[in-house]
Amino acid sequence: MPPSPIITLTTDFGLDDHFVGTIKGVILNIAPEARIVDITHAIEPFDILGGALSIAHSYTYFPSGTIHVVVVDPGVGSQRRPILATTGPHRFVAPDNGVLSLVFEREVRLSVRHITAEHYYQQPVSQTFHARDVFAPVAARLALGVDPGHFGEEVHDFALVSLPRPVENAAGVIAGEVIRVDHFGNLITNITPQDAPFLFLADTPPFQIVVAGQQVSHMRNAYAEGEQGEVFGILGSMGCLEIVANRDSAARILGAGRGSQVRAEPSG
Amino acid sequence: MPPSPIITLTTDFGLDDHFVGTIKGVILNIAPEARIVDITHAIEPFDILGGALSIAHSYTYFPSGTIHVVVVDPGVGSQRRPILATTGPHRFVAPDNGVLSLVFEREVRLSVRHITAEHYYQQPVSQTFHARDVFAPVAARLALGVDPGHFGEEVHDFALVSLPRPVENAAGVIAGEVIRVDHFGNLITNITPQDAPFLFLADTPPFQIVVAGQQVSHMRNAYAEGEQGEVFGILGSMGCLEIVANRDSAARILGAGRGSQVRAEPSG
Amino acid sequence: MPPSPIITLTTDFGLDDHFVGTIKGVILNIAPEARIVDITHAIEPFDILGGALSIAHSYTYFPSGTIHVVVVDPGVGSQRRPILATTGPHRFVAPDNGVLSLVFEREVRLSVRHITAEHYYQQPVSQTFHARDVFAPVAARLALGVDPGHFGEEVHDFALVSLPRPVENAAGVIAGEVIRVDHFGNLITNITPQDAPFLFLADTPPFQIVVAGQQVSHMRNAYAEGEQGEVFGILGSMGCLEIVANRDSAARILGAGRGSQVRAEPSG
Repeated sequence: MPPSPIITLTTDFGLDDHFVGTIKGVILNIAPEARIVDITHAIEPFDILGGALSIAHSYTYFPSGTIHVVVVDPGVGSQRRPILATTGPHRFVAPDNGVLSLVFEREVRLSVRHITAEHYYQQPVSQTFHARDVFAPVAARLALGVDPGHFGEEVHDFALVSLPRPVENAAGVIAGEVIRVDHFGNLITNITPQDAPFLFLADTPPFQIVVAGQQVSHMRNAYAEGEQGEVFGILGSMGCLEIVANRDSAARILGAGRGSQVRAEPSG
Repeated sequence: MPPSPIITLTTDFGLDDHFVGTIKGVILNIAPEARIVDITHAIEPFDILGGALSIAHSYTYFPSGTIHVVVVDPGVGSQRRPILATTGPHRFVAPDNGVLSLVFEREVRLSVRHITAEHYYQQPVSQTFHARDVFAPVAARLALGVDPGHFGEEVHDFALVSLPRPVENAAGVIAGEVIRVDHFGNLITNITPQDAPFLFLADTPPFQIVVAGQQVSHMRNAYAEGEQGEVFGILGSMGCLEIVANRDSAARILGAGRGSQVRAEPSG
Repeated sequence: MPPSPIITLTTDFGLDDHFVGTIKGVILNIAPEARIVDITHAIEPFDILGGALSIAHSYTYFPSGTIHVVVVDPGVGSQRRPILATTGPHRFVAPDNGVLSLVFEREVRLSVRHITAEHYYQQPVSQTFHARDVFAPVAARLALGVDPGHFGEEVHDFALVSLPRPVENAAGVIAGEVIRVDHFGNLITNITPQDAPFLFLADTPPFQIVVAGQQVSHMRNAYAEGEQGEVFGILGSMGCLEIVANRDSAARILGAGRGSQVRAEPSG
């Protein structure tokens, strides 16, 4: 007998209310064998791009067959559609507002359906809590083995949002920005090794990084390198340039945050 | 073979300490097959009514047979009794301080027992952590199939607390209050459609709502209606009038919070 | 069939990011039957002693066979070793930085191994997220039944850190300190009944406790004793003197925190 299906949850609901617990109750009521894993519930309220980042950087680590419920849903109760996406091994249930965009960017085999099979919903359907009344019951039915095709027709005009992309000017300066500050105060930028290969060479040539107006002088390989409190750059676990500090918060030290400008250039 | 029993946890313990993890260890040590679901651990410390609201608005979504542990327990170590309540499909383990009151209000078939079977406790029993030493082991034994009757005698003088109720004056003004502020800053009031039916008609007649001294002019059906940052009323997922804002925090905009006065009247 | 193995997680990762969810995905991808329990993810960033306290006060409550992953890891990516410790019924996976010290203090039958079996890691191994790439996969393989001996050789020079110990001066004054402030604002000290037996007698003789320069006059048996907001001492669930307040935060009332001095002396 295969292990029971996994359903992950990524939301902006926080953990202060009974919302997340209620969603889990709905899932277990329909699919008693489902195993539920929280990815995070601390997406900033209404932050679609934040939700997109969190799911895109975690779903590939889950087993084939996992169902991911992603609800950052400022449009709940409006005309925005609920969608069900399948990508070979993974399945996603979310509002059609772009929160799955960064997943879609990575996937070649992609099918997206507009969920219209209202008989699978928790009745009565509220206007304010579709995670409970729509997304959780649909995920639970997927876990029970209902075929994606039963939930609605395929669509191709689903919403997409994009991360800001770094730009390179004529002088070779890469201008990017901080896209997330993590729990440790590490500044995760949108600059990848592809954007600024000179930063990530084994033997880094002379370069300049400026973050929120302040110079960052070194690239290092691990947080623990350098002096305590020293700020430097690193290739982070999300595959991007991170500006970090050894045992301290780079965000606090630099006074930088999401949206702060990051400029990198070879100075050789 | 039926799926293993579910035990939910609702407490004011927060997630900063090892308390909740310890409770789960105790449960799994006794009932290895139990599946544990957090409803919330963010009840305000000692807030019995807050705990009562959270469990009352979530337990019905869980499968029949679920065991709910609800511990907001300022009287731990004093003479307050531990109780076990059964309501047909659901079972509850909690201190006898009113934290189950709003569950009891909804249930007709109700049996409440004073837990006295100390041989089911985790020994030695501390004076400060009955969730670990009393409530968790009792819940785990219920999950193993021990009959509720084995834990103690039925009682009828259990503690009750009440939500503040809105009052209607001679002029037809409904005076209620904010009973909770949720994670999004939505103001959940104690005014239901039964209290103020005129607010919830498909074609709302002229009305006035005043919250924390400020006028709220519209009722809408979904958070996404109206302009961004506009404050309005809505029928929330807890079945009450909520004062909310589109993609913003009504609590912040109005400077309102728990206990803030909410007055509603037809102005036709 | 025995119940599936339990893997606990204790980290300083917080719940804001996708880190903890990702770790769970890695575990479930390797050991689909594993059941994962969070002890806490709210250890202060880089606080090795804080992590040591949390795991030492919770692991004994879990069933025999449980695998504990403890990651407070400021040295990630440096030369610090990953270790695997076994203590008869429990197994631990952690960085070799002292985070398991307080577990080791309690255990007689102890074997500690330097994990070197890189073929068990999640490839490629990042320099910044060994919880995902090293500790989670090792824990998952333990859950699958891989013998501890397959992960590396036994070592005896593992790192140790110590809690500050109270000292007794010639005049019989016990000078200790606050080692943790819990969610309720209770001040957990490092003074045990062994250090200051006079505080914990059934019939306490006259004594003095001074915390952060302020007198605490009573020892009581339960939080609910005394007046609301009264500050007093108690034997807490961690087996130490706690300075607490009835339905209030002793930390706030006394302006005390971690590291605050606590002096106790018999004054008879």
